Amino acid sequence: MQSSIYRLALVGFGAVGRGVAEILAHHHRRLVERYGADVRIVAICTRRWGAYDAAGLDAASVLRAAASGDTAGLPGACRWSATEMIGSVAADVLVEASPTDMTTGEPAMSHLRAAIARGMHVITANKGPVALHLAELRRLAGEQGVTLGFEATVMSGTPALRLGWSDLAGCEIQEVRGIVNGTTNYILTRMERGMDYGDALAEAQRLGYAETDPAGDVEGHDAAGKAAILANVLMDAALVPAEVEREGITGVTRDMVAAAAAASERWKLIARVWRDGRTVRAAVRPMRLALDHPLAGVSGATNALTITTDLLGDVTLIGPGAGSLATGYAIVADLLALHRKGS
Amino acid sequence: MQSSIYRLALVGFGAVGRGVAEILAHHHRRLVERYGADVRIVAICTRRWGAYDAAGLDAASVLRAAASGDTAGLPGACRWSATEMIGSVAADVLVEASPTDMTTGEPAMSHLRAAIARGMHVITANKGPVALHLAELRRLAGEQGVTLGFEATVMSGTPALRLGWSDLAGCEIQEVRGIVNGTTNYILTRMERGMDYGDALAEAQRLGYAETDPAGDVEGHDAAGKAAILANVLMDAALVPAEVEREGITGVTRDMVAAAAAASERWKLIARVWRDGRTVRAAVRPMRLALDHPLAGVSGATNALTITTDLLGDVTLIGPGAGSLATGYAIVADLLALHRKGS
Repeated sequence: MQSSIYRLALVGFGAVGRGVAEILAHHHRRLVERYGADVRIVAICTRRWGAYDAAGLDAASVLRAAASGDTAGLPGACRWSATEMIGSVAADVLVEASPTDMTTGEPAMSHLRAAIARGMHVITANKGPVALHLAELRRLAGEQGVTLGFEATVMSGTPALRLGWSDLAGCEIQEVRGIVNGTTNYILTRMERGMDYGDALAEAQRLGYAETDPAGDVEGHDAAGKAAILANVLMDAALVPAEVEREGITGVTRDMVAAAAAASERWKLIARVWRDGRTVRAAVRPMRLALDHPLAGVSGATNALTITTDLLGDVTLIGPGAGSLATGYAIVADLLALHRKGS
Repeated sequence: MQSSIYRLALVGFGAVGRGVAEILAHHHRRLVERYGADVRIVAICTRRWGAYDAAGLDAASVLRAAASGDTAGLPGACRWSATEMIGSVAADVLVEASPTDMTTGEPAMSHLRAAIARGMHVITANKGPVALHLAELRRLAGEQGVTLGFEATVMSGTPALRLGWSDLAGCEIQEVRGIVNGTTNYILTRMERGMDYGDALAEAQRLGYAETDPAGDVEGHDAAGKAAILANVLMDAALVPAEVEREGITGVTRDMVAAAAAASERWKLIARVWRDGRTVRAAVRPMRLALDHPLAGVSGATNALTITTDLLGDVTLIGPGAGSLATGYAIVADLLALHRKGS
């Protein structure tokens, strides 16, 4: 099989970038031999360091250097901004994983626009641009004939978006309900075992489940952003996160959790998107679910989505919603989808 | 959007054919307007009647005629064999839904070979050919440049196979476990409510859940065929159904079900496919699962599959496993996938 080479430029090297590098360090050969996709990281920019090698950086070396903080010895070591990197690099795909801003989508949106304008495919793990500017991104990508990937933005590498827009094509999606924030689900699961909200939150933070800003999780902002993405990608809506009705889990007490348990129910933070006449609405709020509800059994940091369709009824997908390897895999899955389209 | 026309020839007009016709009767316009796929049934053959219209049969009329048994008034009403139909019809896609034979794969296999030789795409809802002859079918389809679809063979329209081989591409699938037979799951669920095995079976038959031969369900033959398909499609094995270790649910008593319940467990008929060194093995057998296992909560005629991968861990898909509309949708999903490839 003739391989196609995909040269990646990475904005950010946190959990997502590390996940991509881990997969390439261990499974580069599998991607080449099985799929004919020769994927290489050629450029990285972070706030503190950068690297560049037109022939491809060695993923294992990059991981070691990033872990030790000793990145000065990497090929093409530099400090460049994302804008500089995107404007100068010879790469096929931009992987955007800068911190999410749900109000403006910046700086990610500017990075994506610049990369598309240069004819690069773009894959974003950053929810902001997809929650806020999906229609514009699709239009720009269409004009340049490049592909836009964003599977990572909901349920990390668990193919929730692909399931809805591609596998279930031909169905009308009537409603989507999901547990799309692992941190809050972990906290609620621990509270069922008798923990206080505060202790459970502290434990989630200690385990690294909480995102950069814990309020983003517990007040439902993260889930609201994902609800907007679900509405826009799966139900052709044009909702922004601020239009999602939102209530977090900060008001859920240990007593409420115990009362639900006594009634064979569980509190879950549910993101829900549904049709209301000709409009699509979305809400995030804690709900009590009966124990035999498919989402009730989803515990810990696992995520799940139930998609209600006219032809199949309910289809439920359960899988990891975070984690470096799982999110890195989302990027690889978008790459392979792009590769299938092109080959 | 320019539409592509897909002229279908149907072998059989049972649950699958009716499902396809229902979808076309109600949603033909959606497929044209949203996807640019103008899907028409042009030919049908069953053991008792046939019909043919090069411009497309009216799906609603066909459904009414088939329901009333008054098919003589359909356009091109005839009695032709599948072989005659395939050999003479001007169609783009053969939809094969004759009764399954897990030992020989016939007569479906001959139908598929003949259609591929004539340059038709083939979509089979019949498990026999896929469980027994996948490699040959893939080779023949490849030689003729046509597409082979078989999503309907496991979990009906719930996109279980597509999830594994397409959405999870890039992962190594290490194990697959599933509830892939709705009849037995329904029976076990009823037994949990205190019913005897015999009464639960009779009820399942009354509700139309049991397949043509109930032994095929309760002795695990149907699940074993699906296990072989899962092994071959998702794990590149070459297993035939006879090589699947098999134990049905006929030995599960009400006492055993009660004993499991007392231990917070449930009996489920589990199809399991796993790697054992360099070989892939498969087994179907009743297993006791803890209530918090993702498959334990799957009740009634619903199906589910947990796919264990190296990069994502467990991904679970839950959805309908049977039903006319759901299986008809599987055919439509294969058509849309073929349409995406071509467009």
